[in-house]
Amino acid sequence: MPLVDIQLIEGVFDTSQKQDMIRKVTDAMVAIEGEAMRGVTWVRVHELPGGNWAIGGKSLSAADVKGMQRKSA
Amino acid sequence: MPLVDIQLIEGVFDTSQKQDMIRKVTDAMVAIEGEAMRGVTWVRVHELPGGNWAIGGKSLSAADVKGMQRKSA
Amino acid sequence: MPLVDIQLIEGVFDTSQKQDMIRKVTDAMVAIEGEAMRGVTWVRVHELPGGNWAIGGKSLSAADVKGMQRKSA
Amino acid sequence: MPLVDIQLIEGVFDTSQKQDMIRKVTDAMVAIEGEAMRGVTWVRVHELPGGNWAIGGKSLSAADVKGMQRKSA
Amino acid sequence: MPLVDIQLIEGVFDTSQKQDMIRKVTDAMVAIEGEAMRGVTWVRVHELPGGNWAIGGKSLSAADVKGMQRKSA
Amino acid sequence: MPLVDIQLIEGVFDTSQKQDMIRKVTDAMVAIEGEAMRGVTWVRVHELPGGNWAIGGKSLSAADVKGMQRKSA
Repeated sequence: MPLVDIQLIEGVFDTSQKQDMIRKVTDAMVAIEGEAMRGVTWVRVHELPGGNWAIGGKSLSAADVKGMQRKSA
Repeated sequence: MPLVDIQLIEGVFDTSQKQDMIRKVTDAMVAIEGEAMRGVTWVRVHELPGGNWAIGGKSLSAADVKGMQRKSA
Repeated sequence: MPLVDIQLIEGVFDTSQKQDMIRKVTDAMVAIEGEAMRGVTWVRVHELPGGNWAIGGKSLSAADVKGMQRKSA
Repeated sequence: MPLVDIQLIEGVFDTSQKQDMIRKVTDAMVAIEGEAMRGVTWVRVHELPGGNWAIGGKSLSAADVKGMQRKSA
Repeated sequence: MPLVDIQLIEGVFDTSQKQDMIRKVTDAMVAIEGEAMRGVTWVRVHELPGGNWAIGGKSLSAADVKGMQRKSA
Repeated sequence: MPLVDIQLIEGVFDTSQKQDMIRKVTDAMVAIEGEAMRGVTWVRVHELPGGNWAIGGKSLSAADVKGMQRKSA
């Protein structure tokens, strides 16, 4: 405790980005729960194939998400 | 996409700490995926009653976790 | 098999709407998988307290969602 | 919000059936929550390998499920 | 690792039965993974309100499940 | 009902061990809920790739877990 599950579409992030997410999210949690909890802070990354994640009925591919990323915020 | 599920034991963190987790974890993800993705970055907090989360067969209460927090890292 | 998990924010939908979701989603699945599968088609509704579900770092209350519902599509 | 997770055994449904599930389940939800919510209605399809999903301790293969489908309702 | 999530309908099992599930499931896992893994074997119990879990489109109440339990196997 | 989800790191357990987990966990649940419930007791095994499951910010590989298994309890 705690457990954090990060869920992504496959093919958008590379291994180093996913490891970066694990570290940054772990640190974000530990900053609040306390350093003593680091050893029981679990973070997991789950990836779903492109096409299996839809918004408003429209399935997203990895390419769709990368297109979204390029748009300015 | 992405979706992040934070899972906690009830009674350990107060509302402002949970909101802080949401903001910090969102920012951690956006720092990697890009600001353009903020609007489709979902973060949720789930709480399980004390006694329903066990490590090694021993159920943890909120008080147990607070005891763990006080131990030095 | 299959299992469908519907996840909502508490306080937005009443009991009859949730039961309607269960029936409509079950029928949508059975229309594709075949009537013979109805008996092993499980549908569940999970509700998360308002404030525990955030989009872009902003937590949504039931009132926020009802406000979204009123906006024209 | 809402989020709907459809969970299946791999190898039972083809891509077009899975896309059909996404559309039909999205429409079933939108019919209840309102068209204004379509843009924040997420539907995902998760597939588990055959043999990893058991009923009563008996693991189901894709072929088992297809056999179930052929039985009259 | 591993993590086991037990999901029940609220009101069917009392606290001691749920604790019994945690212990028995933990022991079942440790018997296979090895005693050294006991300290990183997490088991959680999640309960869903009656009416929110449907089989074949029919929502189950705690009373329904207790009725099922009484039927001979 | 009930549903039990067993979550593992890929490459640590072979098929027969996973089937053994399914049987043993099913029996553990049925011993408490009653034999009449066996037919509606679902147990599933989910596997996450090595490197996608972290404890304290350190990602675990299958080899890491096997190393943990060899340590005496």
